[in-house]
Amino acid sequence: MRNLTRNVWICLGLIMFPLTTFGQQKSNFTYMPAQELLLVGKATTEGEYFHRVDTAKYCTMPPAVKKLFTNSAGLAISFTTNSPVIKAKWTVPDNYQLPNLTRLAQKGLDLYIKRDGKWQFAGVGMPGGVTTERVIVDNMGTEEKECLLYLPLYDELKSLEIGVSSDAHIHKGENPFKEKIVVYGSSILQGASASRPGMAYPARLSRSSGYNFINLGLSGNGKMEKEVAGMLADIDADAFILDCIPNPSPKEITERAVDFVMTLREKHPDTPIIIIQTLIRETGNFNQKARENVKQQNEAIAEQVEVLRKKGVKNLYFIKEDRFLGTDHEGTIDGTHPNDLGFDRMLKKYKPAISKILKIKFRD
Amino acid sequence: MRNLTRNVWICLGLIMFPLTTFGQQKSNFTYMPAQELLLVGKATTEGEYFHRVDTAKYCTMPPAVKKLFTNSAGLAISFTTNSPVIKAKWTVPDNYQLPNLTRLAQKGLDLYIKRDGKWQFAGVGMPGGVTTERVIVDNMGTEEKECLLYLPLYDELKSLEIGVSSDAHIHKGENPFKEKIVVYGSSILQGASASRPGMAYPARLSRSSGYNFINLGLSGNGKMEKEVAGMLADIDADAFILDCIPNPSPKEITERAVDFVMTLREKHPDTPIIIIQTLIRETGNFNQKARENVKQQNEAIAEQVEVLRKKGVKNLYFIKEDRFLGTDHEGTIDGTHPNDLGFDRMLKKYKPAISKILKIKFRD
Repeated sequence: MRNLTRNVWICLGLIMFPLTTFGQQKSNFTYMPAQELLLVGKATTEGEYFHRVDTAKYCTMPPAVKKLFTNSAGLAISFTTNSPVIKAKWTVPDNYQLPNLTRLAQKGLDLYIKRDGKWQFAGVGMPGGVTTERVIVDNMGTEEKECLLYLPLYDELKSLEIGVSSDAHIHKGENPFKEKIVVYGSSILQGASASRPGMAYPARLSRSSGYNFINLGLSGNGKMEKEVAGMLADIDADAFILDCIPNPSPKEITERAVDFVMTLREKHPDTPIIIIQTLIRETGNFNQKARENVKQQNEAIAEQVEVLRKKGVKNLYFIKEDRFLGTDHEGTIDGTHPNDLGFDRMLKKYKPAISKILKIKFRD
Repeated sequence: MRNLTRNVWICLGLIMFPLTTFGQQKSNFTYMPAQELLLVGKATTEGEYFHRVDTAKYCTMPPAVKKLFTNSAGLAISFTTNSPVIKAKWTVPDNYQLPNLTRLAQKGLDLYIKRDGKWQFAGVGMPGGVTTERVIVDNMGTEEKECLLYLPLYDELKSLEIGVSSDAHIHKGENPFKEKIVVYGSSILQGASASRPGMAYPARLSRSSGYNFINLGLSGNGKMEKEVAGMLADIDADAFILDCIPNPSPKEITERAVDFVMTLREKHPDTPIIIIQTLIRETGNFNQKARENVKQQNEAIAEQVEVLRKKGVKNLYFIKEDRFLGTDHEGTIDGTHPNDLGFDRMLKKYKPAISKILKIKFRD
């Protein structure tokens, strides 16, 4: 036990060193509940503040889907401050830490500040236990700063307060992102396995375009159920992107894709709908069955897109797998979920494809 | 409690889905202890099998350094097999999971198999509790395969057995990497925050060159102590790379760098010694003090390199910081430790610089 304690202490002490050296706690802080600032990245204003979807309203969705929509993936708090230091105090559940995601991505925070017209990384809120209080960034100037604090990707945020120096102010920010591009999909969309919340791919698309890419990723559960289509159809979306093909079986794709799209089309007669094939999983690099399954998923969705086109569905676009993760097989953490390198490569393919369809300009 | 349990179950079930779908356990397996196969990536054959350095022999090194050398960062097991499935059973301590590293990187395994002359990702051993038994890859052909299984980056591996089908064989492999390029440094070298063990940067350098880059990274403790220099000097190295500047203070660099290099030089009169400046940390993107500290570290080492050159030390090389992490500030997990994207950018700078000095060819 003494050894264990010492080990924990050493590990914590060493790897956390940069967090503490420049993150001295100051005595006088004003804390502001996130509810008094602006929440961005949410499809509607309904439901629990930190939930992505009002799961009480859409109570017929599958239980796993409802549970996952309580995760705050893709949500961020917009505020402005002139404080030289920014702190956060937040609470998450006491649950299991996923083995293929950092605790920071699952339960932590990261802050971006706008400089020279670009959103730039400023610091992280490294999660401790259930409730954590942490300096996110310190020793800044006292100029007015536009801030965007990303929330945990794979957990239900229970509360969040943002702290600034008592002699500084903190105000509700504006939504820096226009329109609503609703992205529905799998764990990869939800953020597995980005290293921190702001590195999930819809967040990166938003920051580099100024458009609001809304993260409706559902770990393992982007399976195109009818009830989920109904919920999506209620959103006043400017475009839909369906990046869910990693999750349903080839049979489920064949059975559900047409109904799913037609349900959206009923309430959105002209809205662009983009369907993306699944990335080729590196689990299939040597595992022949895994490789074959992905091939069948991609063939199944290609066939259903053809069916939809033959039915005369307009403004339907299809992005085919195009070595999204590169060719060296190093773009995933576990064969399935991209690491930040894989996401970067994926975005180099997604951006021009989405840009061409939606006439959106992305920064590199 | 019921909610918590359900949450754990859902999280585990969903994100682990790809691990179980194609990884069914077979009934008949033969397990081989790693000790009967070939351990690669170790500087010498002394000491505990899975420790990087014989800490009993070098008992005067600082306690934190000795503790960290028990971590198996950079070590791998080389073996050959014709089995269509490869399993592993391994034991790690019941200690703290770091918040800015995945459990997979800290306590897990990843497997590479040689194909078309290149080491390619084949699967992971996702860590569970203290002892884990897991299929790494399944459904392969029965051709003979050269395999390299990377060990946990940030933990002391207690035991490891590799399992293959009972009707297949498993043999000790060869060391695929030639010479010994000893790399001494910080947490970044040890592997924080690569997504999995094989993505630590010395492992990537080895696979892409065929040379043996030995990982002597010490989380927070690459501080150039005299006793550590003595240990390094005992290694029959073909080159030394000192990538430790993130850890010592500017004052420590000024006090220790010359003695550290001279201790190596005494026993290695002609061996190339390469010193690398620290990457510019993203913690300093807005934190002015953090930025200033890194600047002072890099100025201090540049001055000491100059002192060494004036003393007439030959075969001493200096790689200056050159936007190792790129310019968009997205290359770290926490402002200090590169994510896989940051490591990839760093290697694009390291490879040509090392190549020029050591006349080593790297694949892209």
